[in-house]
Amino acid sequence: MFGGIYARGEVAACVSDEAWLQGMLDVEAALARACAPAREAAEIAAACRAEFFDLGALGAGAAENATPVVPLVAALREAVGPELAAYVHEGATSQDIVDTAAMLVSRRACVPLMTDAGRVSDAAASLAEEHRSTPVLGRTLLQHAVPMSFGLKAAGWMTAIDEAARDLAAVELAVQMGGPVGSRSPSVASAVASALGLAEPVLSWHTDRRRVVRLASALGALAAACGKVALDVALLAQNEVGEVRAGSGGSSSMPHKRNPVPAVSVRACAMRVPGLVATLAGAMAEQEHERAAGAWQAEWGTLSDLLSLTGSAVAWTAEMLSELEVDPERMRANLGSADVDLGAAGELIDRALAAHRE
Amino acid sequence: MFGGIYARGEVAACVSDEAWLQGMLDVEAALARACAPAREAAEIAAACRAEFFDLGALGAGAAENATPVVPLVAALREAVGPELAAYVHEGATSQDIVDTAAMLVSRRACVPLMTDAGRVSDAAASLAEEHRSTPVLGRTLLQHAVPMSFGLKAAGWMTAIDEAARDLAAVELAVQMGGPVGSRSPSVASAVASALGLAEPVLSWHTDRRRVVRLASALGALAAACGKVALDVALLAQNEVGEVRAGSGGSSSMPHKRNPVPAVSVRACAMRVPGLVATLAGAMAEQEHERAAGAWQAEWGTLSDLLSLTGSAVAWTAEMLSELEVDPERMRANLGSADVDLGAAGELIDRALAAHRE
Amino acid sequence: MFGGIYARGEVAACVSDEAWLQGMLDVEAALARACAPAREAAEIAAACRAEFFDLGALGAGAAENATPVVPLVAALREAVGPELAAYVHEGATSQDIVDTAAMLVSRRACVPLMTDAGRVSDAAASLAEEHRSTPVLGRTLLQHAVPMSFGLKAAGWMTAIDEAARDLAAVELAVQMGGPVGSRSPSVASAVASALGLAEPVLSWHTDRRRVVRLASALGALAAACGKVALDVALLAQNEVGEVRAGSGGSSSMPHKRNPVPAVSVRACAMRVPGLVATLAGAMAEQEHERAAGAWQAEWGTLSDLLSLTGSAVAWTAEMLSELEVDPERMRANLGSADVDLGAAGELIDRALAAHRE
Amino acid sequence: MFGGIYARGEVAACVSDEAWLQGMLDVEAALARACAPAREAAEIAAACRAEFFDLGALGAGAAENATPVVPLVAALREAVGPELAAYVHEGATSQDIVDTAAMLVSRRACVPLMTDAGRVSDAAASLAEEHRSTPVLGRTLLQHAVPMSFGLKAAGWMTAIDEAARDLAAVELAVQMGGPVGSRSPSVASAVASALGLAEPVLSWHTDRRRVVRLASALGALAAACGKVALDVALLAQNEVGEVRAGSGGSSSMPHKRNPVPAVSVRACAMRVPGLVATLAGAMAEQEHERAAGAWQAEWGTLSDLLSLTGSAVAWTAEMLSELEVDPERMRANLGSADVDLGAAGELIDRALAAHRE
Repeated sequence: MFGGIYARGEVAACVSDEAWLQGMLDVEAALARACAPAREAAEIAAACRAEFFDLGALGAGAAENATPVVPLVAALREAVGPELAAYVHEGATSQDIVDTAAMLVSRRACVPLMTDAGRVSDAAASLAEEHRSTPVLGRTLLQHAVPMSFGLKAAGWMTAIDEAARDLAAVELAVQMGGPVGSRSPSVASAVASALGLAEPVLSWHTDRRRVVRLASALGALAAACGKVALDVALLAQNEVGEVRAGSGGSSSMPHKRNPVPAVSVRACAMRVPGLVATLAGAMAEQEHERAAGAWQAEWGTLSDLLSLTGSAVAWTAEMLSELEVDPERMRANLGSADVDLGAAGELIDRALAAHRE
Repeated sequence: MFGGIYARGEVAACVSDEAWLQGMLDVEAALARACAPAREAAEIAAACRAEFFDLGALGAGAAENATPVVPLVAALREAVGPELAAYVHEGATSQDIVDTAAMLVSRRACVPLMTDAGRVSDAAASLAEEHRSTPVLGRTLLQHAVPMSFGLKAAGWMTAIDEAARDLAAVELAVQMGGPVGSRSPSVASAVASALGLAEPVLSWHTDRRRVVRLASALGALAAACGKVALDVALLAQNEVGEVRAGSGGSSSMPHKRNPVPAVSVRACAMRVPGLVATLAGAMAEQEHERAAGAWQAEWGTLSDLLSLTGSAVAWTAEMLSELEVDPERMRANLGSADVDLGAAGELIDRALAAHRE
Repeated sequence: MFGGIYARGEVAACVSDEAWLQGMLDVEAALARACAPAREAAEIAAACRAEFFDLGALGAGAAENATPVVPLVAALREAVGPELAAYVHEGATSQDIVDTAAMLVSRRACVPLMTDAGRVSDAAASLAEEHRSTPVLGRTLLQHAVPMSFGLKAAGWMTAIDEAARDLAAVELAVQMGGPVGSRSPSVASAVASALGLAEPVLSWHTDRRRVVRLASALGALAAACGKVALDVALLAQNEVGEVRAGSGGSSSMPHKRNPVPAVSVRACAMRVPGLVATLAGAMAEQEHERAAGAWQAEWGTLSDLLSLTGSAVAWTAEMLSELEVDPERMRANLGSADVDLGAAGELIDRALAAHRE
Repeated sequence: MFGGIYARGEVAACVSDEAWLQGMLDVEAALARACAPAREAAEIAAACRAEFFDLGALGAGAAENATPVVPLVAALREAVGPELAAYVHEGATSQDIVDTAAMLVSRRACVPLMTDAGRVSDAAASLAEEHRSTPVLGRTLLQHAVPMSFGLKAAGWMTAIDEAARDLAAVELAVQMGGPVGSRSPSVASAVASALGLAEPVLSWHTDRRRVVRLASALGALAAACGKVALDVALLAQNEVGEVRAGSGGSSSMPHKRNPVPAVSVRACAMRVPGLVATLAGAMAEQEHERAAGAWQAEWGTLSDLLSLTGSAVAWTAEMLSELEVDPERMRANLGSADVDLGAAGELIDRALAAHRE
């Protein structure tokens, strides 16, 4: 019912149950390749396909054990038969599998997310170029300040999105493969990391959740950057301002309305994000000993929601900016008789576009 | 995959897409009864059954309009035919339907939730009675304090759950029926409220979200009360303490382990709640004019998650306490040679049980 | 530097170190009166005045013990001399004193807070009466909807503040007097509660923080209700809308500006509140055994900040509304040629005013 | 009263009113040097000392204008006399000064904070070396898992703190100098950045708060890393576990207790942090146009609290670990007859120590 608003774009599909399951299976396959003889590893890897497993049964087993890995390993061992069973999940602990899968799921979810972020900043870049010299009122504290260039405003959106996306891309996604209490030889982690294209941490991070928090924060900043653009668009689209038009959503009671649906949807998604960031930040401090009794398990759904909502915010922002109708005449009219001095807008837009193209 | 942990019990089903859809249809039916002639209203009401509608199409339409009501009203009008169409959704605005439906959804979700809360406190009451005079170490700042009665500890759990549940039951769930900008005659709201068993507010609360925040806070307190019980249980179940056993979850690497799965699951759910409460509290301040451009739409999924996670926390707590194995001998052994003075435990337990039975 | 913004009004002084100290001393005095012979109790009570104590020394001692009560009791015993020392803090634990003091501090802080809330709603009531028939555009999703009465808008502000204030006033503030592990006879709690005008709980609530969370949530809702009014005012004061003027703050670079300072300050305070509410809601689940090792101690500063920021938001809102300049002509001009139908505005305003005057 | 707990160490002094004032004055001085003739700039700079100004008056003026810069510039202009007045604050806007000052304040606050973080990880490194081969039970989900080395546990603490501190040090602190609407020539920003040792952003970031959120998140992760260490210490110090002792705090009612005060204080501080992180993340999305009407002003106190609480958490953690008493015999006794295989602990500790020393 609400998924069209909260789960726009392709990120939501990347955090589905199937996606998590495939992520865990990919880790088991890589682990087998790191530990088992080649032929056995290949057979295990061939069995590691999500469509071979019964999600309902795994979910039920997950509830009985507070981890989906217990039933998954049992099912995988049964699938490969008794001779190969001992090579499955060798020396690993549940958290090795889930945490590494979380990194894979996040990386995969970031593919469409980054594509959409690129669409946002490209659209903003076009606006910055096109409206390089279009005068518009600058507004501070929701009051008229002094004139500026609309292109510079768009360049600000572009740079904010670009830099938030760059921060997100820079988050280190690392393998987890320390065994029950983190004391396993790092050679296995190294091999699995290499196979999966993940970083190798100095130590296991079973109860050091910095990476998760860092990822969450980067997602939060990107969602908020989108939220800011949407707020500007909604404010500029007010009838009394009328400098942009964005969306044509209908009303169940007022047929004349043209609601700024994409902006509203971006904001709905973005507002749900900071609470999720705080949940993960808070959970980081509650990690008992070598594996947390609740604070770890709280992460899975939170991270999925965070990826999905941020992805949706970005997808909606891309739509919003690519369809944005700009009204330079109204901008000029709103300026009234104010003297227009665009300051260093041109120079600044050039700097920003150059950074965008890097 | 994770639903077994996060969506235990029957609350999750009460916040499904189908449940929201039926909630909205129930509001449209009640509205028709309040405004249309009796025969027409009956025909409309007969059409207001979720299974007659295409959730996928409604979801797509919701995304186009930032509200599911636009496509829902269109579909309902089509279903009842052109002669009755004008009686559908008469004088209402989208938010009237969604907000009133949110109240219905919440009330329905609270039925299993309150039942489970009752199971929790009944289980705690049994422990309080049975262990009225069972000595156990009181512990403060995670250090031994002085002896107390285990029954008093259980009574504390019981009272906390009972009072949190009572606060939740006391949250006023009110109708919303103010029309586009809240200026509709209150007589319609009154009729719809009466039909649906909801309270009638002084004014429309389209942008006064106190009720939503109050509901969220009450859910948050109940989830946290469960989280506290689970923390105590997990701490008492530590091997070195060994005063209770709770759960027999397996490990993918350590066959000897008996993990306190219910306690872990309660905590996983409860930790996800405060961020959601904060989201709703934050959204309350961002309600522009007569209908918010994002802060309202952010509520729907947040409230659903909040109900579902709190419901799961309560359901898990009920299982945890009803299966709790208590070891009075270990409690006694842990006390060592300490003099045991149970203080006013008996009197306090009686007070608490009396309040529980009210 | 920033206190003028964040600590407007008189609430901040009610959560100062001196105020907390006096609160704790009032509890010790009431406890002495409940337990000691009359003459001894009177002497102890006479010594329980904040100005007799060295805040710096108490603060240092608080840090050494993770509670201010250890040094406070030592100082109070020294002050009253060896003969009376045994009657000081008899049978109590640190948390009894701090928690009960927190209730006293909160109650005292709510006096100016509620007065200011009354000023807010009275000012809104005046606007509602005066502008009962002043037409203004209703706006939804930041777009023009249909006309309404400005008085109804003001009545909405009034009712939101009134109801949030009523919820706050209804929060039960209870004594805490359970002794080290909560097993003390309730007769002492009863006497202290009666002396201090606090409610008597069924059991000690050392690790059941529902009351704190309930108080926090009520404060959060009141702050958010103010934030919503400020947002409306800031939006209505936009130059392009110009329907109200609120504030005359200067700019360091733009002498022509009239910034809506009260609205900005309300929003600055209100935005800081949900995070604090979440902190307290989160801490409620982390209360180990009979006294928490961190989650309790995290409350003190959080609750103080929450009271102070909410108090400031309310004080600023009172100033904002009492000085609000309303421009009915501009409202009329913005309506253009729209037909004006105020709906049931008059009836609704009357209902709301009647509820306000109750 | 509570400052000893929440404001341990030297960070709190770095976020005082005086520190903010000096930060703003340093920015005004650097701006004068970038814009005014050398002699005039030197005279202005000489006047830019916090002790020359009246904090109370500035605070009152800040409240009237929702920014401290309006009264500060007036006072500074008066101090330097009419001839130099025009060179003061030339072309700048309030936010240029406050934002750049926030960066200076943060950088200065991070000096003692990073020193204390170094003390924490050095203390953990010593434990890692000393207890390289000290067997201890690994514990997962608060249950016994398999034996490990206590040195590896300490190495985990060390690495977590080191990496969180490294992330914090890597946060880019950038100048803000874009003038009223961000269109000022970047040459001035460049000069001021160079003078103050700050980075030069591509564009002004008046309403792109990524840097603030990034800083907040890095502080949040560091505080949480400390919180995790404190939780482990508090759990290991439980009487039934007894593997470490940490602190000797007294009790107002139980003279025999040795409370783990530093661990409690770390946790009290760390629990207050995620809510503040969320406040800043949430504010990032509410930045209207060229300067926010509330969401910017909400940052100042939040950032100060965040620095102070994180600084306190780190300072307490340093004390906690440097005084930690480890009991290898109790660790051995708790292991019982379990076979001890330390796995790759030695190799892992060496890796971690090597990374620590980098």
